[in-house]
Amino acid sequence: MKIVYTEEHRKRSARTELYGGQLVPPFECPERIDFILAEAEKRGFGAIVPPRAHGMAPVLAVHDAGYAAFLENAWANWSALGHQGEAIVTVWPARTMRPDRIPAHFEAQLGYYCLASETSISDGTWEAALASKDVALTSADLVIGGARTAFGLCRPPGHHAATDQYGGYCFFNNAAIAAQHARDKGIERVAILDVDFHHGNGTQEIFYDRDDVLFISLHGDPDQAFPHFLGFADETGSGAGEGFNLNLPMPPGTGFDVWRAALGKAMERIARFDPGLVIVSLGVDTFEKDPISFFKLTSNDFSTMGADIAALGLPTLFLMEGGYAVEEVGINTINVLEGFCV
Amino acid sequence: MKIVYTEEHRKRSARTELYGGQLVPPFECPERIDFILAEAEKRGFGAIVPPRAHGMAPVLAVHDAGYAAFLENAWANWSALGHQGEAIVTVWPARTMRPDRIPAHFEAQLGYYCLASETSISDGTWEAALASKDVALTSADLVIGGARTAFGLCRPPGHHAATDQYGGYCFFNNAAIAAQHARDKGIERVAILDVDFHHGNGTQEIFYDRDDVLFISLHGDPDQAFPHFLGFADETGSGAGEGFNLNLPMPPGTGFDVWRAALGKAMERIARFDPGLVIVSLGVDTFEKDPISFFKLTSNDFSTMGADIAALGLPTLFLMEGGYAVEEVGINTINVLEGFCV
Ligand SMILES: [Zn+2]
Ligand SMILES: [Zn+2]
Repeated sequence: MKIVYTEEHRKRSARTELYGGQLVPPFECPERIDFILAEAEKRGFGAIVPPRAHGMAPVLAVHDAGYAAFLENAWANWSALGHQGEAIVTVWPARTMRPDRIPAHFEAQLGYYCLASETSISDGTWEAALASKDVALTSADLVIGGARTAFGLCRPPGHHAATDQYGGYCFFNNAAIAAQHARDKGIERVAILDVDFHHGNGTQEIFYDRDDVLFISLHGDPDQAFPHFLGFADETGSGAGEGFNLNLPMPPGTGFDVWRAALGKAMERIARFDPGLVIVSLGVDTFEKDPISFFKLTSNDFSTMGADIAALGLPTLFLMEGGYAVEEVGINTINVLEGFCV
Repeated sequence: MKIVYTEEHRKRSARTELYGGQLVPPFECPERIDFILAEAEKRGFGAIVPPRAHGMAPVLAVHDAGYAAFLENAWANWSALGHQGEAIVTVWPARTMRPDRIPAHFEAQLGYYCLASETSISDGTWEAALASKDVALTSADLVIGGARTAFGLCRPPGHHAATDQYGGYCFFNNAAIAAQHARDKGIERVAILDVDFHHGNGTQEIFYDRDDVLFISLHGDPDQAFPHFLGFADETGSGAGEGFNLNLPMPPGTGFDVWRAALGKAMERIARFDPGLVIVSLGVDTFEKDPISFFKLTSNDFSTMGADIAALGLPTLFLMEGGYAVEEVGINTINVLEGFCV
C-alpha cells in the first residue's frame, strides 16, 4: 500500500489548546505522525510517496472562497493585532445574535469562521493545511487510477471542517475534498465511512443534501462527546440527500462487539449504495487508552476493523483523521491498514 | 442619591479571562467597585443602602428557567469533571451545527448557554449574580416608589446577558430584570438607555418584540467592537416591537461631540415614548483610556452626560455596567451621577 506523506505537516505546530479552562499543549501534535511512520517502517509496511500540488480548485469545490481567504490570511491578521498568544476565538454568532453578517474586525471573523475554540490558529497552519489536502488528493488519484487502496497520511485532520468553519483541529476537509475530486474525475458515487471516535460534522454538513456522496459515521454519542451539536441518529440527510446520511452514535464504554455490529450496518448500507470509491476517515481515537474519547477498542480490534472493511471488495482510500494516545497511534493505524491488506 | 450596594459582588472573582490567545486576569474585577465607592466617599456623594432579597421570580420573568438552573449548578458540574481551570467554553451550536438540542454533557451545556468565551464561570459566580440582580431590583424599588433617581452598583454587570445566554462578563441582565419588575409594578412604559461602550445585545434580545420597553443603545460599531454579531443600525425591533429598538453605533475614535449628538437623538426618542421610568445601563468604558474600547470621552464629559440625561425630567434608575480603566472608573461614574443631580 502506498502511503502519501510530506514533512510539511510539521508547520502545524500550535503551542496551545484550550482544554479544561487551561491552555495546554495540543493533543493534535506532529509526534502523532512520527509514531505512525515509525510503526510502518518497523513492520516494513507501505511505500512512502510525496504528494503532488493540486492547487486550490479542488478545495474551492467544497469550501467557501471567503473561508479559504480568511484561513490564508488568519495568522498575519491576528499577528497584526499585537496579541501574545495564538489565535483563539472569544465571540461568535451565538444563538441570540445574528448569523448573517461577517463583521470587519478580525476577532469577529475568527468567530464567524470557527466552530470550536480548542483549536488555535498558529503560524504555519495554512501551509500545513494546504499540504494535507494535497496528500489527500494525491492518495485519491492513486485509487481513482486503479489501485486497490492507498493511505493519505493527512495532518492536520479534516472531518470536523465544514463548508466555511474550522475547529476540532481541522481546517480543510480532506475527505470531502477527495470525494468531490473523485466525483469530478467521473466516479459516480462515493461513500465516506468515518470511523474516527468523533462525529464527522464537517463532512456531513458538506454533503447533507446530496445523493451522490453517502456519508456514514460511527462515533461517540454527541450528547456525551464532541462536537456535541451534530451527529445524532435523526440526521438522515435533506432534500435529494435524504437517506444518504447515516449516523451511528454509541454510548460511553462501547466495546468492539457493539462497535463492529455498527460497522456491519454501515457496510450493508455502503454495499447497497454500490459506490465506485470508499473513503475511510481513519481516526484511531476509538482506542481504549485514548485521552479524549470513551470507546474501548484494543489494538487487535483495529486489525479486525481493516479486514472487515476489505470484505466490501471496493476501491478504498484511507485518510488519517484523529487518534491521540500517541504511543499506540502508530500500532493501531498500521493494524487497520495491514488488516485491510491481509 | 441612594447607592444600593453589597459586598457579595466579591464572590465573583474569576482568575482567568481568555484574551488575545492567553489567559489573563479578568478586566472585570472586584477592584472596579472599590474605586467607585472610594470616589463616592471622597466626595461625600450618595448614601449606601443594602439590597433586599427579591427571590427568583423577577429573574425568571425575563430569563429562561433552564438557563437559571444551568447557572446555579455550573460551578459544581464543572468541578465534577476534574478540570484544573475555570469553566471556559470550547464548543457551541455553531452556524454549521444544530441549535435545537441541549446535549447532556456539561461541556455542551456550557456551549449552549454561552455567547462569548472571554467570560469564565468561577466559584461564587452564581452567588454574586444573585446579589447583583437584588441590587438592581432594590434600587428599582426606590425609583418606582417615588425617588427621582437611584444608583444600583451592580456587579457582575448585566447588559450582555440574553434570555438564555451568558457572556461579556454578564450572567443575569440586571437592567432587563429591573425593567420587567417596573412593568409588573404597574409602570406602563419603561425606557432603557444603554450608554456602555458595548452594545447591550442581551437587553435588545430580551425586549426585541415588545413595544412596552424601549431599548436604545449608543455603542462602538459592532463591525469593529464586541459583541460583533448584534447592535447594527438596521435592528429596529420585530412584530409589536418594530420601532422600539434603536441602535446608534459609532466608529473608532468617536469623541464626545459626536457621542453627545447621538445621546440627543436617544433623548428625543425617549421623550416621545413618554416612559414612567428610564433605566440607564451605565458603563463608563466610553472613556478615552479604557483598555478594551475605542471612544474618546474625557472625565469631564461624563458630568455633561449626567446633566443631559437629567434634562429629560423623568424618574431615572442608574445600573452599573462596564468600565475598565480602573483608576478612573470611580471618577467617571460619580461624575455622571453628580452631573445628573446638579
Ligand atoms: Zn476524533
Ligand atoms: Zn462595556
